[in-house]
Amino acid sequence: MSFVSPIRVKRGMTTSGLAKQMEAVQVLGPGRFGKAVRILSEMFGDQQCCKMLSIAGPIVPGGLRNVLVDLVEKNLINAIVTTGANVTHDMLEGLGHRHIVGSETDNDETLRRKGLSRIYDLLVKQKSIEHLERSTRHMLDRIPVEERRNIATFELLWHFGTQLKDKESLLSVSSKRRTPVFCPGIFDSMLGLDLWTYSQLNPLFINPFKDFSKLVNLSYESKRVGAIVLGGGMPKHHVLIANSYRGGVDAAIQITLDRPEGGGASGAPLEEAISWGKIRRRDSLVTLVGDALVLFPIMTLAALENSGK
Amino acid sequence: MSFVSPIRVKRGMTTSGLAKQMEAVQVLGPGRFGKAVRILSEMFGDQQCCKMLSIAGPIVPGGLRNVLVDLVEKNLINAIVTTGANVTHDMLEGLGHRHIVGSETDNDETLRRKGLSRIYDLLVKQKSIEHLERSTRHMLDRIPVEERRNIATFELLWHFGTQLKDKESLLSVSSKRRTPVFCPGIFDSMLGLDLWTYSQLNPLFINPFKDFSKLVNLSYESKRVGAIVLGGGMPKHHVLIANSYRGGVDAAIQITLDRPEGGGASGAPLEEAISWGKIRRRDSLVTLVGDALVLFPIMTLAALENSGK
Amino acid sequence: MSFVSPIRVKRGMTTSGLAKQMEAVQVLGPGRFGKAVRILSEMFGDQQCCKMLSIAGPIVPGGLRNVLVDLVEKNLINAIVTTGANVTHDMLEGLGHRHIVGSETDNDETLRRKGLSRIYDLLVKQKSIEHLERSTRHMLDRIPVEERRNIATFELLWHFGTQLKDKESLLSVSSKRRTPVFCPGIFDSMLGLDLWTYSQLNPLFINPFKDFSKLVNLSYESKRVGAIVLGGGMPKHHVLIANSYRGGVDAAIQITLDRPEGGGASGAPLEEAISWGKIRRRDSLVTLVGDALVLFPIMTLAALENSGK
Amino acid sequence: MSFVSPIRVKRGMTTSGLAKQMEAVQVLGPGRFGKAVRILSEMFGDQQCCKMLSIAGPIVPGGLRNVLVDLVEKNLINAIVTTGANVTHDMLEGLGHRHIVGSETDNDETLRRKGLSRIYDLLVKQKSIEHLERSTRHMLDRIPVEERRNIATFELLWHFGTQLKDKESLLSVSSKRRTPVFCPGIFDSMLGLDLWTYSQLNPLFINPFKDFSKLVNLSYESKRVGAIVLGGGMPKHHVLIANSYRGGVDAAIQITLDRPEGGGASGAPLEEAISWGKIRRRDSLVTLVGDALVLFPIMTLAALENSGK
Repeated sequence: MSFVSPIRVKRGMTTSGLAKQMEAVQVLGPGRFGKAVRILSEMFGDQQCCKMLSIAGPIVPGGLRNVLVDLVEKNLINAIVTTGANVTHDMLEGLGHRHIVGSETDNDETLRRKGLSRIYDLLVKQKSIEHLERSTRHMLDRIPVEERRNIATFELLWHFGTQLKDKESLLSVSSKRRTPVFCPGIFDSMLGLDLWTYSQLNPLFINPFKDFSKLVNLSYESKRVGAIVLGGGMPKHHVLIANSYRGGVDAAIQITLDRPEGGGASGAPLEEAISWGKIRRRDSLVTLVGDALVLFPIMTLAALENSGK
Repeated sequence: MSFVSPIRVKRGMTTSGLAKQMEAVQVLGPGRFGKAVRILSEMFGDQQCCKMLSIAGPIVPGGLRNVLVDLVEKNLINAIVTTGANVTHDMLEGLGHRHIVGSETDNDETLRRKGLSRIYDLLVKQKSIEHLERSTRHMLDRIPVEERRNIATFELLWHFGTQLKDKESLLSVSSKRRTPVFCPGIFDSMLGLDLWTYSQLNPLFINPFKDFSKLVNLSYESKRVGAIVLGGGMPKHHVLIANSYRGGVDAAIQITLDRPEGGGASGAPLEEAISWGKIRRRDSLVTLVGDALVLFPIMTLAALENSGK
Repeated sequence: MSFVSPIRVKRGMTTSGLAKQMEAVQVLGPGRFGKAVRILSEMFGDQQCCKMLSIAGPIVPGGLRNVLVDLVEKNLINAIVTTGANVTHDMLEGLGHRHIVGSETDNDETLRRKGLSRIYDLLVKQKSIEHLERSTRHMLDRIPVEERRNIATFELLWHFGTQLKDKESLLSVSSKRRTPVFCPGIFDSMLGLDLWTYSQLNPLFINPFKDFSKLVNLSYESKRVGAIVLGGGMPKHHVLIANSYRGGVDAAIQITLDRPEGGGASGAPLEEAISWGKIRRRDSLVTLVGDALVLFPIMTLAALENSGK
Repeated sequence: MSFVSPIRVKRGMTTSGLAKQMEAVQVLGPGRFGKAVRILSEMFGDQQCCKMLSIAGPIVPGGLRNVLVDLVEKNLINAIVTTGANVTHDMLEGLGHRHIVGSETDNDETLRRKGLSRIYDLLVKQKSIEHLERSTRHMLDRIPVEERRNIATFELLWHFGTQLKDKESLLSVSSKRRTPVFCPGIFDSMLGLDLWTYSQLNPLFINPFKDFSKLVNLSYESKRVGAIVLGGGMPKHHVLIANSYRGGVDAAIQITLDRPEGGGASGAPLEEAISWGKIRRRDSLVTLVGDALVLFPIMTLAALENSGK
């Protein structure tokens, strides 16, 4: 029989010190948060563990772009699977555009007339999106035609990363370090529209099978794989399913506000993936109910402290 | 100033009669449910409105497969955008396999050993999935090589629909009626694994740009477009973004348990899409917070009554 | 091994017919909805089952007042435990005031200046609330002082029900039929403020122990008890805890949007109450994730059909 | 036009340093978290601000008891409004009992047979609860009869606090410091059952009007009032309604997983309370969607750093 051990908060404590206390609570949110920090710290400290990050939701425009960039720079993230939206917004910032502070009660018809598009309380100018279209066209032109006839999304995004002026963008850094950024739903984004438009007049064939082969090989060749799942959606499922060939990931943390009862993959507890062979064991897993945009930076700080990275 | 009008429930009342009363409440859940039934009824009654359905979550394995099949048969759904999982499960049933009743507290390691995989409290046999792999291979073999070298998902799924023995499957009926079923994330599913495996040894090149062209054309050529959004995910976003070329859909209903505050597209209110030009007006929109698996059959019954279909 | 049985929706079907099909799905939302309708129908059909209803959230102002009134009239609800807010709003309507249609994006500072108070997208005039204060004072004056010195909330609310002009109010009908309406948190509402103000100058002692004795006796003397839990909060917990003296309720249905992971009683699955001795068995229980304002009227219609009430 | 400013996480950073960066994001979860830390820091630093804490959900058994105790000791919490459950669990620990680590998938019928009761994944022994009953009886016996005939919950709980052996319990510390702990729903808890049982044979008359007078006076006499709302429920509403006599609280932060669309008070955004006169202004308010058990300790650490307390 194990007992709940209460927390004490004292000025001067580190974030990781607090997280360790929370792990000792063992139950409810604090127990899960503490466990998630421990698992993340172990991943960061394990050089033979391939850390795969899945991101859905406005992780990049919502302020976490540099958090991810620094982790890629430090080799603490080895592969990313993302939505088209996060890539779109990284490129927008990579082209010098910024995200604007709005409000979730803004009138959308008025915003439309003003040339602003909304993500909850965050705005982006239509003009920025138009600039992205022109830039994408130029960047595509610079990719050799032969390559464009059969290109994976991770290859395409490395090309974009190399061409972006902002060397701090997620794509630039990933490209420089050869960290693959997979985007299985790239077609379903503003960037995707630009790719489709381009393909109507120019040779461009994106081959998602090439992406999947790369991801499966990465998984297969890694001694250990850890999944860091921010939000649900296709990126979450994609990381897990790609690991089914090696018998599942070894460790995983998930942060989501989606709920399980509807039966969708986004809100499903990680344990469910064990029955599909996508995760190996139930002891190195944890699902945190919460907003990844809030919790992940805090967990990252604690895990950097713990792992000395 | 408009007033809330309370509901009265009497035995003998029809579902649509109750929904009409709920519309008169005007506020909170009842007002939204009543409005959603009205919008759905108007879509069903409007032959010049192209009804686009997006489905995410276990709509097909969770018992709603025949509801969708009947709507396609009656020409009340004109295009479907779905996750790979729903297609996978339709094919499983189309091959004669059934879904099994489990429990959300089942131990997943035990299930794994028993050859069962879990979606919340619903199970599927691994043997069924292995059968699907073999069948998919055979069905792919029967598609002319030339076609396989540049095929859209909707074309591929029509082929599968034609070849499935079960003529009541969603793919069979959609194929028979030439209703396109788009699956932009087809790579991210059990079926997707089978396609990828096949592509390693045989010519198979799926071209999502062809899908998008078809979907955009369908949207563009329709006098009116109505979106029926069950769950969020990529299918939701995909229907909406494809309609941005025509200035947005004319009407939309959304049923989801996802919440908006995290900023993800799944939980976003439909109004947000107005600022992106994906929806035209705010008066023919409604978001229902709830489980689509529960609410959509009830709404369908009411809308069939209202529209006489 | 039991299999999922899919739904078919046909025009002409009754609501209860659809619910029966949903029960056959057995899994996910449809299975739970169908089971909930069956349990509710059994409760309605069982004259020896004391039906206890708990309500939290804007059930009364949100349009369900008459649904409850009719159930009380038909003896299908035998006791109610409610928040102070629902009693407040029933009295407001009982005094002739109506609830106004607003919007969840209304500016609250502007509303305040206009004398309007908001519940999500529903408004109430401050003038109505002031009228309630005066009326409450007059109604209290008419209760004999001796009674006022030691009064239970159910006694107080019967007095109010008798004095309200609107004979269709929930309190009037409950008073006429001697159906107790318990309000353990009556102090925490606009009505509660009026009671407190009155008590500063006049004898008024509300004794919640009397309420609890009445509720426990009702539970104890009933052959069977069924709990209908709409929303969570104190009303939910109160119905369940009062039944712990008889070994728990025999059957229960719960409809809520609250989630379980935070550990609060509102979102807890009913099964948890078994470990506390508040519910007897796990076979006559069901938790529906959804909006009670939408689902309860539909379930009521189906259960009236099934029970012939 | 204001721009989103991205976060950077570096080892060695303090929790408050990270929170300040998150405030600069301004949007979505990070912006809200950062703002909440700032408001909490301002409250902590303002000696003329009466800090009122409302707690619902398993804050005490879930490991945060000492966090609250230390804040009361430091005069950073000046009044508490809580559910009966949190008081019950503080007394259990105050009597030497501990909470046990369980699992949310434990079988509740088995737990019942083993004499264990469950709160999500946390367990408590029935024997502990029986001990609480005997102790409560003895503690009540020691309160002068005259006082027992008309006692407020905050008075009763001070008595209990004085008599508990564990001087680190929330009630002991609150009693020692004369910080009132209000429990408007005390009847609705295991402790409430004990009080009711006692009242059947002994004079005990709890008067919630006395509580409300005390709370209103505290609010009225304070130069400024800040509300810290952990979870929703009656405690949240109670703090806010008591402040309506002074025109509302001056600042408030709320952490909850409940959602607004159902219209219940628990999930309502704080802004709504402005229309009721319970909050003064919209600029010192923030609602965080998340688990208070996880976020509050982190915010407390940051706010202690900022305020030097």
